[in-house]
Amino acid sequence: MPKPQLLETFPNPYADRKYEIYMETNEFTSLCPLGGVETDAAELKLLEGGAPDFATIKITYTPAEKCLELKSLKLYFWSFRNDGIFYERAVNHIMDDLVAACQPHALTVVGDFNVRGGLKSIITASYTRD
Amino acid sequence: MPKPQLLETFPNPYADRKYEIYMETNEFTSLCPLGGVETDAAELKLLEGGAPDFATIKITYTPAEKCLELKSLKLYFWSFRNDGIFYERAVNHIMDDLVAACQPHALTVVGDFNVRGGLKSIITASYTRD
Amino acid sequence: MPKPQLLETFPNPYADRKYEIYMETNEFTSLCPLGGVETDAAELKLLEGGAPDFATIKITYTPAEKCLELKSLKLYFWSFRNDGIFYERAVNHIMDDLVAACQPHALTVVGDFNVRGGLKSIITASYTRD
Amino acid sequence: MPKPQLLETFPNPYADRKYEIYMETNEFTSLCPLGGVETDAAELKLLEGGAPDFATIKITYTPAEKCLELKSLKLYFWSFRNDGIFYERAVNHIMDDLVAACQPHALTVVGDFNVRGGLKSIITASYTRD
Amino acid sequence: MPKPQLLETFPNPYADRKYEIYMETNEFTSLCPLGGVETDAAELKLLEGGAPDFATIKITYTPAEKCLELKSLKLYFWSFRNDGIFYERAVNHIMDDLVAACQPHALTVVGDFNVRGGLKSIITASYTRD
Amino acid sequence: MPKPQLLETFPNPYADRKYEIYMETNEFTSLCPLGGVETDAAELKLLEGGAPDFATIKITYTPAEKCLELKSLKLYFWSFRNDGIFYERAVNHIMDDLVAACQPHALTVVGDFNVRGGLKSIITASYTRD
Amino acid sequence: MPKPQLLETFPNPYADRKYEIYMETNEFTSLCPLGGVETDAAELKLLEGGAPDFATIKITYTPAEKCLELKSLKLYFWSFRNDGIFYERAVNHIMDDLVAACQPHALTVVGDFNVRGGLKSIITASYTRD
Amino acid sequence: MPKPQLLETFPNPYADRKYEIYMETNEFTSLCPLGGVETDAAELKLLEGGAPDFATIKITYTPAEKCLELKSLKLYFWSFRNDGIFYERAVNHIMDDLVAACQPHALTVVGDFNVRGGLKSIITASYTRD
Amino acid sequence: MPKPQLLETFPNPYADRKYEIYMETNEFTSLCPLGGVETDAAELKLLEGGAPDFATIKITYTPAEKCLELKSLKLYFWSFRNDGIFYERAVNHIMDDLVAACQPHALTVVGDFNVRGGLKSIITASYTRD
Amino acid sequence: MPKPQLLETFPNPYADRKYEIYMETNEFTSLCPLGGVETDAAELKLLEGGAPDFATIKITYTPAEKCLELKSLKLYFWSFRNDGIFYERAVNHIMDDLVAACQPHALTVVGDFNVRGGLKSIITASYTRD
Repeated sequence: MPKPQLLETFPNPYADRKYEIYMETNEFTSLCPLGGVETDAAELKLLEGGAPDFATIKITYTPAEKCLELKSLKLYFWSFRNDGIFYERAVNHIMDDLVAACQPHALTVVGDFNVRGGLKSIITASYTRD
Repeated sequence: MPKPQLLETFPNPYADRKYEIYMETNEFTSLCPLGGVETDAAELKLLEGGAPDFATIKITYTPAEKCLELKSLKLYFWSFRNDGIFYERAVNHIMDDLVAACQPHALTVVGDFNVRGGLKSIITASYTRD
Repeated sequence: MPKPQLLETFPNPYADRKYEIYMETNEFTSLCPLGGVETDAAELKLLEGGAPDFATIKITYTPAEKCLELKSLKLYFWSFRNDGIFYERAVNHIMDDLVAACQPHALTVVGDFNVRGGLKSIITASYTRD
Repeated sequence: MPKPQLLETFPNPYADRKYEIYMETNEFTSLCPLGGVETDAAELKLLEGGAPDFATIKITYTPAEKCLELKSLKLYFWSFRNDGIFYERAVNHIMDDLVAACQPHALTVVGDFNVRGGLKSIITASYTRD
Repeated sequence: MPKPQLLETFPNPYADRKYEIYMETNEFTSLCPLGGVETDAAELKLLEGGAPDFATIKITYTPAEKCLELKSLKLYFWSFRNDGIFYERAVNHIMDDLVAACQPHALTVVGDFNVRGGLKSIITASYTRD
Repeated sequence: MPKPQLLETFPNPYADRKYEIYMETNEFTSLCPLGGVETDAAELKLLEGGAPDFATIKITYTPAEKCLELKSLKLYFWSFRNDGIFYERAVNHIMDDLVAACQPHALTVVGDFNVRGGLKSIITASYTRD
Repeated sequence: MPKPQLLETFPNPYADRKYEIYMETNEFTSLCPLGGVETDAAELKLLEGGAPDFATIKITYTPAEKCLELKSLKLYFWSFRNDGIFYERAVNHIMDDLVAACQPHALTVVGDFNVRGGLKSIITASYTRD
Repeated sequence: MPKPQLLETFPNPYADRKYEIYMETNEFTSLCPLGGVETDAAELKLLEGGAPDFATIKITYTPAEKCLELKSLKLYFWSFRNDGIFYERAVNHIMDDLVAACQPHALTVVGDFNVRGGLKSIITASYTRD
Repeated sequence: MPKPQLLETFPNPYADRKYEIYMETNEFTSLCPLGGVETDAAELKLLEGGAPDFATIKITYTPAEKCLELKSLKLYFWSFRNDGIFYERAVNHIMDDLVAACQPHALTVVGDFNVRGGLKSIITASYTRD
Repeated sequence: MPKPQLLETFPNPYADRKYEIYMETNEFTSLCPLGGVETDAAELKLLEGGAPDFATIKITYTPAEKCLELKSLKLYFWSFRNDGIFYERAVNHIMDDLVAACQPHALTVVGDFNVRGGLKSIITASYTRD
């Protein structure tokens, strides 16, 4: 299961102004709970969790009091590696975890998933503090 | 004929918020009812439906209660393979079928068709729920 | 001379909604009345009309009752091949001819001409129905 | 079934010398006899022949007495559209048909197939006259 | 008809050594004698010579006593504009004309023609002095 | 010194409507009055005016009564070749000269200068008629 | 551990000639036994096998009697997902497994690994049958 | 430590109008105070300040009375080379130093840092004069 | 006139082995003695030497006892700025000057000249020590 | 000074065969002993060693008994950061150090240095064991 407890923050050194931080990794991988478009039941037993999914994850946020610590973010992404989760849920789940961790002014998560069945999928979820 | 009954949906896991889903395939093919810009009558008998058209189809939507299921979308696109349909009609037809299937907040379909007679064509149709 | 009478249309199958059609050709060629930046008088006699110009023409429009028929558009562009016309006039002329033929909600023509004298030229003209 | 009888040739206008002709289409599509990596049995009934495959086909040859006629080559490729054939067989089959039709000095066929199951495949077969 | 008499040369300033000259134009256009893959008979009357073809022509040669004069080469290419000629013939014809004009150690002509009927064609012809 | 007197215009053939003209050259060169980031005093004597600068100049304007003549624009740019002028001054100077010559509705000049001292510079100046 | 027993083959339909098959996946991932350049000991406990590595794997081979079945190749690559293996060993191991499975005339494996510590690594191993 | 005293300015030659200046360098390097995502304690002793960071820095500003002198900006960037500073602090620090030096109408600094731990980071800070 | 006396060298620090040095500049400009393809006589008076030519110059050499000093090479290229010279002569002239200056094992000069009259020219000359 | 003692190796796991390893970093930086093309004497005092140089270093080798350890290679490159060294010397020095450390069958080092004075430099040195 994704482990939001891995996420660490540090005090924003310029909390008195609004500025933007973008982070991107092309090394996100998880498993598809149903095996997805391209996998039959027999194959799923191999990995005991579903067929692998691969994505580039892009995060843009405006920090308030806290900034996301880069190394902890890497470990948080690792924690998706061996669990099954759908595209739509993964992207919204990441957004909720990051918002809870650093309580930013605003935050957007884009998940750009590899082609499956000839179809590419990109999911975008955004948060703005009221 | 395109088979909208192939389209399946699943409940949007985050129906309480607006977020965006983009899907794209470069494997869309149909037939041109008249043979189009590049085909004469004799050639049309070969395929009993018209000369082949090829396109990249791009879909962007904001789901409401339902999300489009990826595998069923693939099959729905397959159902255009052996029928004749004009560019303008194909794009608007896809838009209407997808809107009927998942009743989204908003949805856009772009059909980017291969060059014919030295001319490239891109058709864009959009829907917004009132 | 350009032959707008070559342009044909067909009834817009979805005239009840606004959607966008984009068409592009990189096979537009005409002649320059004065020979342009790169040609002297002796050379002009060769073609009895001026030095060749080459351009990519890009058309974007929102159809109303009529759509432009693709094959007739190809022939219309051919009719510029052996006549002399300036860049600015060509782009505006095409825009006027297309608007007259299909009476759209809106239409834009972009003429992206090859480098002459080390200078690239791009002309853009737009029409919106009142 | 592929129809080699569609292939036409014309006399090579420069048969006294060796020169090279390259032709390429990104509009090749056939069906996979087994449904391939990404398709289960239920889906195959939709098209009564297998899941669609898409490829770019590239042909390079040195003509001897005959050249391949371009329009007939287009129709020959169309004849693969509704039949099931494996990648390896398709590429070698095309090579044999083209060699039989024009009896060239040499000929190479490359089939560059779309990603399936996260895997891209490119098959290359070559012929040289003894 | 192509006019090789337009071709001019100047004495090679370094005729005592072998070096290479490459020239390329993306503004080559001619007419197809039969209308080619994409044109029916009615359309051909428009231009009284055939449907337009477009190509990039690439020339590589090792000059001997004479170099090809650039401006005259431009005019030579213009002389193809209003005559019908097949791809294979055009490329070999250009090669023969250039060899006759400058009698080089070696010369290659590549004609890279625009897509017709979904098919791209590239013709390559080479000459080496014995 | 730049020679605005070289600039010529012709009557805008469609002065009754607003449309846009873009022109670009990657062959702009001038000299740096101080030798700039990368040149010492001894080197400056070589050219008697400063170290060479190179830029791509991009002009976008909405013509009113007059259009800028392309060939005269080329010659105007040549007139910067042997004089020293700073980046900021060059771009604003060109803008003022072009506005004076053709009195447009609006005009923008972008000067995109080559890397000096590891730093790239792009200057943008705009004019809008009151 | 990598599972070569997952690899399946089918009889080469054109075993009487030599031709080439290329396959590529950008979805290869394994674990680094030591955590690699970028990971400390505490992080390794998270995945109980090492830090994740990502690579594009490219295979080129000339089949003899047997061809590698695409779907089984996909599953074979999945079997690296949760085990630790060094770059050099992974590429040579894959080469040995594929050669053992299909006994080809020749086979090359390229592993193009993601940047670690600012360094990109590409390993290439080749086999030729004696 | 960064040395803002290195920054020099010159009088804006067109201070009566608003125009934009963009400058970019891909040669920015500093040290990470903690060694960052990819470095352990032993390695840090090598450079006595932390592991190296690399970034492209992009500056856009609207000058008021003063312009930033290019050569002094180069030297100012050099002064970060041997000191430890976090991404977020570096970008905001640069912005504050440049604003103090030239008091512009507006100024934006973007720091696009190299991949660390599979993650790319881009920080953007903006200033607008009240 | 080009000034080969500007070229300086320094002793090759590894003269006991053969290795390769490549240098490239996209800031070469000279004048065309005849005004070239695109310029008439009146225009030539402006620059008193001919129309400007622009090229990228690429040098590859294997040093023997001496290496070409980078700064002096820059100044040597500047010395072409205000003199008229043909493409073929310029490239061979540069080759001869560089060979004379550093007496290398081998040296190649490529001059890649900007488009003139729709034609691009690339000249390549090579030297090998006997 | 570069510290070859930082280089570590591990036993080649497949020492019985020849295969190739490629490694590349775009984070190499050193100082120029003389300040190089773009720096005057006053600037050099800032860094007490010379103006910064930046390069991409590319290594290709065929390991014999030992492989280069990736992490130690990273630290070895760091050791060039604060010392002055010329391009030609740096590339040959790296080659000698790597050959001494791992005694490979063959090894090539390419140093691709950033533009200085409008000139790009690429140095290539190769070693083959007798």
